Amino acid sequence: MGLKIAETCIYTTDLDKAEKFYSDLLGLRLLKKDKDRHLFYKCANGMLLIFNPNHTNNVKTEVNGSPVPLHGTNGPVHLAFSIEADKYQEWKGKLIKNSINIESEILWSENVRSFYFRDPAGNSLEIIAGNMWNYT
Amino acid sequence: MGLKIAETCIYTTDLDKAEKFYSDLLGLRLLKKDKDRHLFYKCANGMLLIFNPNHTNNVKTEVNGSPVPLHGTNGPVHLAFSIEADKYQEWKGKLIKNSINIESEILWSENVRSFYFRDPAGNSLEIIAGNMWNYT
Repeated sequence: MGLKIAETCIYTTDLDKAEKFYSDLLGLRLLKKDKDRHLFYKCANGMLLIFNPNHTNNVKTEVNGSPVPLHGTNGPVHLAFSIEADKYQEWKGKLIKNSINIESEILWSENVRSFYFRDPAGNSLEIIAGNMWNYT
Repeated sequence: MGLKIAETCIYTTDLDKAEKFYSDLLGLRLLKKDKDRHLFYKCANGMLLIFNPNHTNNVKTEVNGSPVPLHGTNGPVHLAFSIEADKYQEWKGKLIKNSINIESEILWSENVRSFYFRDPAGNSLEIIAGNMWNYT
């Protein structure tokens, strides 16, 4: 009965800026796009869906005759990505080179560190190297 | 350089209600809890972090001398879980038995269907059976 996370969602009112950021800078693979409503990205272990809340919270949508429930938030969400430990400096350097401000950097334990930055909408992104969630 | 999603975040101002819902009804494993700030759950393929935005967007927090950036949203987020196809009726029945309203149900394709419901904060949850994102 275990649940997997299939879709992680964040929101922005400017999907064009989001597309440049998530496609070109972060290198995620865009699977689907509706210029007024959403960008659907594939990550290594799931989907990242970016929605325009002005649309998803207001415009009734149906799929095959059934309604898609309304949703949409305002304010910055947090979203963390993980990478292989040996890619940490490469990722950090790439973002700095592209004039992305590194808002904070945390050494969580001897072998786990992460840095924080913002997407164009102000969402708080984090890239974690190492095994942050040491569970089995 | 591929990014994995490590932490999916949603928000609620009532963590007690959220804990009952996500621990007792959905059966997620609670790894960490701060009664004023967060619930950290383990899913099969990543972490679901539930934050109180009144805290995370307002109270400055540090870890090992570095600031944790502020974040927090208002409004319902969407979050989709996936399950094995043969568990669909079992999950749907369990939620109905617990007086959870099934807001919509969508047949996406011959082999993929999902149903929608709300958590106590109004976040729009979906449980998907089958391979919604047919990529490799």
